[in-house]
Amino acid sequence: MATHRFDPNFTDHVVGAMGPKTSPRLRQLMTGLIRHVHDFARENELTVDEWMAGVKMLNWAGQMSDDKRNEGQLVCDVIGLESLVDEITFTLADEAKDAPTATAILGPFFRADTPYRQNGDDIVKTKPADGEMAFMHGRVIDFTTKHPLVGATVEVWQASTNGLYEQQDPAQVEFNLRGKFKTDQDGRYYFYCLRPTPYPVPDDGPGGKLLELMDRHPFRPAHIHIIATYDGYRPLTTQIFDRKDQYLTNDSVFAVKDSLVVDFLPRKDDPQAGLELNYDIKLVASESATNGT
Amino acid sequence: MATHRFDPNFTDHVVGAMGPKTSPRLRQLMTGLIRHVHDFARENELTVDEWMAGVKMLNWAGQMSDDKRNEGQLVCDVIGLESLVDEITFTLADEAKDAPTATAILGPFFRADTPYRQNGDDIVKTKPADGEMAFMHGRVIDFTTKHPLVGATVEVWQASTNGLYEQQDPAQVEFNLRGKFKTDQDGRYYFYCLRPTPYPVPDDGPGGKLLELMDRHPFRPAHIHIIATYDGYRPLTTQIFDRKDQYLTNDSVFAVKDSLVVDFLPRKDDPQAGLELNYDIKLVASESATNGT
Repeated sequence: MATHRFDPNFTDHVVGAMGPKTSPRLRQLMTGLIRHVHDFARENELTVDEWMAGVKMLNWAGQMSDDKRNEGQLVCDVIGLESLVDEITFTLADEAKDAPTATAILGPFFRADTPYRQNGDDIVKTKPADGEMAFMHGRVIDFTTKHPLVGATVEVWQASTNGLYEQQDPAQVEFNLRGKFKTDQDGRYYFYCLRPTPYPVPDDGPGGKLLELMDRHPFRPAHIHIIATYDGYRPLTTQIFDRKDQYLTNDSVFAVKDSLVVDFLPRKDDPQAGLELNYDIKLVASESATNGT
Repeated sequence: MATHRFDPNFTDHVVGAMGPKTSPRLRQLMTGLIRHVHDFARENELTVDEWMAGVKMLNWAGQMSDDKRNEGQLVCDVIGLESLVDEITFTLADEAKDAPTATAILGPFFRADTPYRQNGDDIVKTKPADGEMAFMHGRVIDFTTKHPLVGATVEVWQASTNGLYEQQDPAQVEFNLRGKFKTDQDGRYYFYCLRPTPYPVPDDGPGGKLLELMDRHPFRPAHIHIIATYDGYRPLTTQIFDRKDQYLTNDSVFAVKDSLVVDFLPRKDDPQAGLELNYDIKLVASESATNGT
């Protein structure tokens, strides 16, 4: 198989070193990883200095990471790996006929302890002067039957206009621009939020350094994160993107999919918001792929 | 080109995001890296949990690394990457006809501040009870002319019988089992050292965890590190391995090459050592590949 001029047995030797107690899946993954990493090094005749620069960058990522920040994840994100893994997951689910709404990456700013709020509430607890208010509403429905799902949970989070999520920004009150909502008797959720705005990923670590070296901007297009859950249905993690955003086609972490692009429309006669966004979320029963319902 | 069932444009999109100011070499390396990482993820249908486990392991490596320890390097070493990069470097040098002695990886235990010692000195300053003493000697010669190189520097370092280098082990005096020597008027260097013994790489971090997951032992075969330098000649970094070592064919970091395996022979009539090792080091003039000397 080897078409290069280096030791043709080296990679087989490394792969073959795995012992009999290696789990089959780990063996598969490590075999693939070792072969690709070795091919990459050979094809590009990687030098010691270049390899060491990579090691330093990986160590730097770990050293910057803590409870509030995951720089290793960001490095993966800027080379598209998190979005690709998400696409793989979605494609496999779609082949199993249980992926009605496209998914997107979770991102590093989710908080598990976000509180429930009432439908109609305003999640903008710290108002930025330059924020545009929007009324976001829609239904959570069963993908197959189209029936509304009553009491489903819709969790949302977004950055403020300065590009920061509340846990990154001491000037925002806790849980600003976050909330969990339960759908009402008609399966509806509704609340006030900001029209989202683009923001840069952090540029003070190896993720930012990589972007600079690749002559790329750090911006993510404006988006709102959503997780929707309902008992007996597969949970959905996604993001929705504003069609008018200038970074829609060059998201720094490659998370945009056509079906996740939405339109903010003018809203009349509402003193709380000049825009509205209607977005229905379709969930699929956990067992529908196997029991045919 | 795509033979998979995922978005055929995704990887091109990520590669194509690089801007015009990217350096040609970085563009080549990042293009190769992105394509291989994406192919790896698609071919193995990498899951979100598996990807996240990898991110955690990389962050962990960085968090364990400091001035005395480079866990990112160790992770590369256990998948053979450092040795492969060394082989690539050596092969390219060999094609340029300037690599007379095979190279090997530097490893993480080199110290730039190692002192010079006199030929005939004993580098074993802290004697382990189970150590076997050896007299190591040889010449540094010009690869082409075979003439001895007078005043060349030969630097060596080795672990003690407990598997620890002096900077890892408070029980060893500083610079134990290390030294720099200058060749004499005949181009000879000579000193007393230990017959090297096998030792495990550190197993308390992600490198050790990977070895465990791959059902592999952590041992390196017994070796002595060497760096040889001489003005106007290419510096040489290598390791020599004891032919009798049980780990010769399954070094945990894959650094063994046939030409680096040496024989410790019985030594008679020397109260300081029962073994000897004769090892000549061939250096090549920096310009010989281009000026034909």
